[in-house]
Amino acid sequence: MSEFQNIGLIGRTESDSAVLSLKRLMAFLERGGYSVVLEKNTANDVAGHKARVSSKDKLGELCDLVIVVGGDGSLLAAARALAKFSVPLLGINRGRLGFLTDITPDEIEQKVGEVLSGKYMAESRFLLDMSVTRDGKPIGKGSSLNDVVIHPGEYIRMIEFDLFIDGQFVYTQRSDGLIVSTPTGSTAYALSGGGPIMHPKLDAIVVVPLNPHTLSSRPIVVEGSSEFKIVISEYNTAHSYVTCDGHDQVITEPRDTIRIHKKPHRLTLIHPIDHNFYETCRSKLGWAE
Amino acid sequence: MSEFQNIGLIGRTESDSAVLSLKRLMAFLERGGYSVVLEKNTANDVAGHKARVSSKDKLGELCDLVIVVGGDGSLLAAARALAKFSVPLLGINRGRLGFLTDITPDEIEQKVGEVLSGKYMAESRFLLDMSVTRDGKPIGKGSSLNDVVIHPGEYIRMIEFDLFIDGQFVYTQRSDGLIVSTPTGSTAYALSGGGPIMHPKLDAIVVVPLNPHTLSSRPIVVEGSSEFKIVISEYNTAHSYVTCDGHDQVITEPRDTIRIHKKPHRLTLIHPIDHNFYETCRSKLGWAE
Amino acid sequence: MSEFQNIGLIGRTESDSAVLSLKRLMAFLERGGYSVVLEKNTANDVAGHKARVSSKDKLGELCDLVIVVGGDGSLLAAARALAKFSVPLLGINRGRLGFLTDITPDEIEQKVGEVLSGKYMAESRFLLDMSVTRDGKPIGKGSSLNDVVIHPGEYIRMIEFDLFIDGQFVYTQRSDGLIVSTPTGSTAYALSGGGPIMHPKLDAIVVVPLNPHTLSSRPIVVEGSSEFKIVISEYNTAHSYVTCDGHDQVITEPRDTIRIHKKPHRLTLIHPIDHNFYETCRSKLGWAE
Amino acid sequence: MSEFQNIGLIGRTESDSAVLSLKRLMAFLERGGYSVVLEKNTANDVAGHKARVSSKDKLGELCDLVIVVGGDGSLLAAARALAKFSVPLLGINRGRLGFLTDITPDEIEQKVGEVLSGKYMAESRFLLDMSVTRDGKPIGKGSSLNDVVIHPGEYIRMIEFDLFIDGQFVYTQRSDGLIVSTPTGSTAYALSGGGPIMHPKLDAIVVVPLNPHTLSSRPIVVEGSSEFKIVISEYNTAHSYVTCDGHDQVITEPRDTIRIHKKPHRLTLIHPIDHNFYETCRSKLGWAE
Repeated sequence: MSEFQNIGLIGRTESDSAVLSLKRLMAFLERGGYSVVLEKNTANDVAGHKARVSSKDKLGELCDLVIVVGGDGSLLAAARALAKFSVPLLGINRGRLGFLTDITPDEIEQKVGEVLSGKYMAESRFLLDMSVTRDGKPIGKGSSLNDVVIHPGEYIRMIEFDLFIDGQFVYTQRSDGLIVSTPTGSTAYALSGGGPIMHPKLDAIVVVPLNPHTLSSRPIVVEGSSEFKIVISEYNTAHSYVTCDGHDQVITEPRDTIRIHKKPHRLTLIHPIDHNFYETCRSKLGWAE
Repeated sequence: MSEFQNIGLIGRTESDSAVLSLKRLMAFLERGGYSVVLEKNTANDVAGHKARVSSKDKLGELCDLVIVVGGDGSLLAAARALAKFSVPLLGINRGRLGFLTDITPDEIEQKVGEVLSGKYMAESRFLLDMSVTRDGKPIGKGSSLNDVVIHPGEYIRMIEFDLFIDGQFVYTQRSDGLIVSTPTGSTAYALSGGGPIMHPKLDAIVVVPLNPHTLSSRPIVVEGSSEFKIVISEYNTAHSYVTCDGHDQVITEPRDTIRIHKKPHRLTLIHPIDHNFYETCRSKLGWAE
Repeated sequence: MSEFQNIGLIGRTESDSAVLSLKRLMAFLERGGYSVVLEKNTANDVAGHKARVSSKDKLGELCDLVIVVGGDGSLLAAARALAKFSVPLLGINRGRLGFLTDITPDEIEQKVGEVLSGKYMAESRFLLDMSVTRDGKPIGKGSSLNDVVIHPGEYIRMIEFDLFIDGQFVYTQRSDGLIVSTPTGSTAYALSGGGPIMHPKLDAIVVVPLNPHTLSSRPIVVEGSSEFKIVISEYNTAHSYVTCDGHDQVITEPRDTIRIHKKPHRLTLIHPIDHNFYETCRSKLGWAE
Repeated sequence: MSEFQNIGLIGRTESDSAVLSLKRLMAFLERGGYSVVLEKNTANDVAGHKARVSSKDKLGELCDLVIVVGGDGSLLAAARALAKFSVPLLGINRGRLGFLTDITPDEIEQKVGEVLSGKYMAESRFLLDMSVTRDGKPIGKGSSLNDVVIHPGEYIRMIEFDLFIDGQFVYTQRSDGLIVSTPTGSTAYALSGGGPIMHPKLDAIVVVPLNPHTLSSRPIVVEGSSEFKIVISEYNTAHSYVTCDGHDQVITEPRDTIRIHKKPHRLTLIHPIDHNFYETCRSKLGWAE
């Protein structure tokens, strides 16, 4: 019998194709005798189903596996919500492959079937915890699987901040902002910003300056256990914003302190057994030509 | 007798050091018998002077030379305001050298003296005109000596637009924005964004994508006479903003069209006779080590 | 009657597919009553033809149009050899599109037919002349349509040299070398080296440092009329090599001087009437996704 | 009593200033009652000394500490030779700071004195082992503290090879070569090639493509335990060379296989107690402005 009996489903329901894939997946799971639990918002958009419905949090408690139907963004959101539970995630993409959602709709029966029968690859990914303090008091926080980004909120106007890693002063930077990225995030925004690709298994974090004023400012890769502190400079005219995976925006004031470190809980990401990180790179980055 | 008799003065008056330099410059000019005209806002901050006061526009009509005391930003502002007049500009920096303001405060008497006696280098620089239309109607415009930047206004969220040059479709781009820069602007923001340095004499415009999603998207240099059209894509969730030299912000809607081309009026920039573009690069970019 | 009556043909004869295309092209031209002149080396590989045979130089004198069958490299070689004549060149690629050879084999009859009937786009491209002097005496020279590259010949060992543009000292550079590229070359090696794309019509030359020791050293774009002088530093342990389009290698000694400037003769490149530079970029650089 | 009693000395003897520093260091050590052992080649250039002389290998066996006087290159050479012994290394630079040799000549007595009295920071750095096989037989090998570089030996002509990491195919690359670098090497050649800075404590290796033909080919950071295999493609016209820290050149043939992995022996690098990696970055890369 499969180790996965209770299967949670989360879908990006604005998308018609995701709803179709969801229904196909539900039918497949029900035929197989699995117990399906639909996430509440997802359930609203799937007409005429007879599945159990539950909040995202309950999904984390009830399920042995959560399948996300959508793009990488949908999986990021699910990962942030469910990281505190130990439930593994599997991603089904709407169209072409993603870095995180690597089953395509037409492979649902075959690939999900294989995973449920025990043929899969489990990968442990770490997340980042971010918190902002003002005069020593917490004013905001968030989690991210990809990256924490500090950026000027309202205008393209350079911001200035001091970066400390493990208590050591690194530099005062004037730039369009800073990306602090996990290996998972290294193939997302950090890559557009000029960062290196980091293998998912690597226990490291990369700091990528965004269009820095100092041309010799380069991406820096440090150990995954590093503690980051960013202090917004006093005379910034713009407010700096902090976002986690592009969400949970916190607006800072000069002298606010942003702290970032690895989250204690990790995410287990399930891949089909033939998953290969470099193949995804070749396909998504056009290396194959 | 000097070809420059009526000298307009503009200063960045928030800065104490700029006010000191202004006073020193006024004293020097008055000793030399030159007619000094102070720009109105500047005049407010210079206590006890007896100089004529005038609006920026009048300065353009009345003066043979306008001297700007401040940083490169002050000179950019003066250039945008005075480009429609034929008056040449000379820049005095507050501290270290700028790319546009290449006289330091302690050289005022010597270098300005030389310029007034006819020993100088005149350089013609072109500006860009930008206009935005919605459903065919104009909704905003601006001029820039450095660059026109299209960027997501409120969030770091990629924007999407189509770029056309001289009527030819170049690409659909998803990125943090686009810099369209003159040679003058090529050593400013465009350089942080990964653009090439362009010699001030070059009649060319560079297009620099900001952290583009497509990694093979690179800066493109085209003729100075090129006409740029940028059409904001329909399904942008964020509003794109357009700024000229970081000012004159226009907020766009999906399907708005941004047009950019060379301004008919050019700026004459005055340099000390020993000015050398590459020397400024070596000093400001740390090439000399 | 077509303005092109005498058609020269040059092929990259190591390639079977080029020979096939050549034969197809010859048959098409002979059916149309054109006078075909085969380049000598090309003729050796085309069995059983009855065409006139001539040296490359004679081709330049005799023909109204020279068609090159091969890759961009074959067209570069033909361009260097024929630049001193006024004969225009047309390129047929063996397989996928090139930047210079933009007719594919299966379009030969249609596209060449259109060109011969007067439907074409003529583009003027400039070349570079390079010469090396030692103690004031010439020791080597060459021409290039793409680029002149200075590089360490035998080892990956940084070389050092001084760069002067139009008599002005730019910098002393330590690097893996320097690319001096035309707009034509800007989509070739210079692009891999981090240079910008330059539109073919632009009258400009770009200098691209190869992996420079000084991180703030960036590509510099200057006017096409610029004169470049590179002086190899005294204490280089490696010999620097100079190549033109990857050929005509000259080995330098410390203190040798390399001079580069625009060639007086230009190349006329013929394109099908629907040619579009940006479309080639989209296709070859994967912008279209 | 100091844990370091027997001190080996290695100097870059072509340099007069290094010889002066060596003599100053010897005098200081002898005054302190330490037993000094001079490396054989070094001894030849230090006239009139009475110290014991020994081969580099013996130094590794006899000494508790080896001090290298020279640049980062001298320390790299000593590290490669002494890595199989457990002796720690300390570097004294000739002039300005290096990344590895972070005591300046005028600080010799103070800083070396502190180290000998037990006030120091010990850092463990890993090296790479490289081997080349042809038809399954070994034809060359080497070790490096910085990097292994595959490059075209004689010409700037792109080379082609297949890269495998931990048995997985990564890509077929056409480029000017490939840098495989340790964190130690990440601030050296790999940085000029566009690689990220990696903190010395990070257990990771970076692969940096040199001017790759595919523009989306980016630096890849993987775990320090990774096994690299590079297979030279069949139809390379140029011979590829492999170098370790710029030395130990091996010339390959098409189909040769290059294998790279972490060396079992590690290097212990001794720093003054106040050493700070980011401070060295700020100073050497000009971050401080």
